[in-house]
Amino acid sequence: MIKQMLQNVKEKAPLIHNITNYVTVNDCANILLASGASPIMADDIIEVEEITSICTALNINIGTLNERTIASMLKAGKKSNELSHPVAIDLVGAGASTLRKNCCDKLLSEVKFNLIKGNASEIKVIATDSLGGRGVDASASDSEGIEKLAKAVAEKYDCVVAVTGAIDIITDKNTTYKVSNGHPAMSRITGTGCMLSALSTAFIAANDNTLLATVAAVTMMGIAGEIAAETSNGSGSFRVALIDAINNMKPEELEKNGKYEKIN
Amino acid sequence: MIKQMLQNVKEKAPLIHNITNYVTVNDCANILLASGASPIMADDIIEVEEITSICTALNINIGTLNERTIASMLKAGKKSNELSHPVAIDLVGAGASTLRKNCCDKLLSEVKFNLIKGNASEIKVIATDSLGGRGVDASASDSEGIEKLAKAVAEKYDCVVAVTGAIDIITDKNTTYKVSNGHPAMSRITGTGCMLSALSTAFIAANDNTLLATVAAVTMMGIAGEIAAETSNGSGSFRVALIDAINNMKPEELEKNGKYEKIN
Amino acid sequence: MIKQMLQNVKEKAPLIHNITNYVTVNDCANILLASGASPIMADDIIEVEEITSICTALNINIGTLNERTIASMLKAGKKSNELSHPVAIDLVGAGASTLRKNCCDKLLSEVKFNLIKGNASEIKVIATDSLGGRGVDASASDSEGIEKLAKAVAEKYDCVVAVTGAIDIITDKNTTYKVSNGHPAMSRITGTGCMLSALSTAFIAANDNTLLATVAAVTMMGIAGEIAAETSNGSGSFRVALIDAINNMKPEELEKNGKYEKIN
Repeated sequence: MIKQMLQNVKEKAPLIHNITNYVTVNDCANILLASGASPIMADDIIEVEEITSICTALNINIGTLNERTIASMLKAGKKSNELSHPVAIDLVGAGASTLRKNCCDKLLSEVKFNLIKGNASEIKVIATDSLGGRGVDASASDSEGIEKLAKAVAEKYDCVVAVTGAIDIITDKNTTYKVSNGHPAMSRITGTGCMLSALSTAFIAANDNTLLATVAAVTMMGIAGEIAAETSNGSGSFRVALIDAINNMKPEELEKNGKYEKIN
Repeated sequence: MIKQMLQNVKEKAPLIHNITNYVTVNDCANILLASGASPIMADDIIEVEEITSICTALNINIGTLNERTIASMLKAGKKSNELSHPVAIDLVGAGASTLRKNCCDKLLSEVKFNLIKGNASEIKVIATDSLGGRGVDASASDSEGIEKLAKAVAEKYDCVVAVTGAIDIITDKNTTYKVSNGHPAMSRITGTGCMLSALSTAFIAANDNTLLATVAAVTMMGIAGEIAAETSNGSGSFRVALIDAINNMKPEELEKNGKYEKIN
Repeated sequence: MIKQMLQNVKEKAPLIHNITNYVTVNDCANILLASGASPIMADDIIEVEEITSICTALNINIGTLNERTIASMLKAGKKSNELSHPVAIDLVGAGASTLRKNCCDKLLSEVKFNLIKGNASEIKVIATDSLGGRGVDASASDSEGIEKLAKAVAEKYDCVVAVTGAIDIITDKNTTYKVSNGHPAMSRITGTGCMLSALSTAFIAANDNTLLATVAAVTMMGIAGEIAAETSNGSGSFRVALIDAINNMKPEELEKNGKYEKIN
């Protein structure tokens, strides 16, 4: 079912506009290229509308945001909406500061997103309208009831919501999938979450079914994490092996090794 | 012929001032170090003149440009001209937006460059004064007649022009070289172009003959790409192997494995 | 003696706020995660106080500073002082420009630092109040009398000072250690210095004895450099192996392989 979705990324090679943090931006560009898509990074307010216009989809990531880039995110998001381009947001550290929370609120109220992605803590911030959570790391206790929160967010913003963790939940409110692929080593490097949102944007750019396209991207990243854990010798080589695994994965392998299921 | 040029980089260890994008900046710093040169990155307008003054050459890369850094590029470029330091520009995504096109026009009219580097699409933007091209990726059809365009740009700006692609063209208008080294895998990671312009800046800093120094840098990067493709297992390890190959390449190996020739 | 300090980093998993340069920011995040700590990067003036408040310690690195981030460094530093959080500074290229020198002066006069880290050239700038040094690389001649300078800086700012080089010196004025671990290959990649200051911040966050915690971090990075030099095949793989080595190092191995001694 999901193998065709990766095939479509490879065939359509979508160009993805990324407004993202400077910590993991190189990893985001490389994961897109590894999958068969292409990245362009641009955040100056003067050019974001033009850049978004030549792309297929937009990936907004609020890590290391600042006033200058927040304005650019809004402008690019609105332009993408006008052009009916898919738009994704990664809620990096949404509960870590009022600025990040307010930025999310503003973006979510003024831009229509096709995909909202975060860990349990970050989704909780959006669902319950309250600060909290330990920066960019999800605390375990936040996971309780996260499926319910994810559905509430999906309903409120009429979009697909992906919550990452030991088990990943992807829902469009009506239909919910869980993905059991992945490896704890993924949380010992920076950027696996950012890479996943970039990759997901490529998948929703190349496929009409946003829910399943997101499931495919989440599954692919999880399998890559498993392969990387087996073939690496620490977190430095894990990161290298993760990008290799994305680069080498064939659609059939994604299908065969994927542990995703519809839970309701 | 070109082996002495690498030898000179290693012996002189030129300090290169880079004003470059935040996507591949780490790769640019590491490729300079790998070759025997040294990098310094600095983009605040208050300090760029002083930084450029303690360096041997300046490398300007317009990826992820913004109004703040464009002003710094201009100031650093003019100061480098005053000091007769070699200055290079990488036209990243020159045709992707009006901002980038205008930035290139302004830089090219107010700063004297010793080396202009881009892919076929980017050089075409400068040569024909028109927007276009697919972001930072060159489209194949743009390659037609690129040698003619390169010479036109070299004549207009009285400098060396390097056009990268499956075959690389380097010209100073009067004399033209083609380099056949390289590997398609180089386009499946971000930063090979940016790394090449950083490396080329080190070569033109350490050598008087800008044309041949650029040929040497382009050849070196191509050979490194070939070695990396052979020894890596995907795009993640390719990037690591590419930097290793630059780091390990001896002047004799550059000469022996280089496929460069004067075509007119 | 120092093994417990690494154990404490792993057990307490301190969250470290980093305001750092965009060249090596990814390496800093990954080295913190590799050691058992957690990173958060944030530099907008609106959020730095809140971000610092949820963290255990603050790491300020002046590479690629600009007017916007300098203001954020000051604000975050003062807030950390209010909260009695440990604060570290890495004097990257302190002598390379008036802006960097002035930034250091302002930070050092308005914020109380627990740890000041630099190479010989950078510490000399602070100690002698004069510009100079070759950018971010230390020149060898600056090493003379560096122990005396380090003590003078430690006395002036009442803090621990770490001077990195072939031999590393760590002093709190009264007691001085030297660390002989390390490998020349560490200077052929960018970021080993930045990674060390991030790592040191994690160590002083997780331990009460700032002097010994810094000795432990410097020793750990030196051992990791030795391991990486043995297992890598050039500067690209050296960087990967360095992070692996930090990730894999057990407290007992740190103690066993550490070459640190009290010199007065």
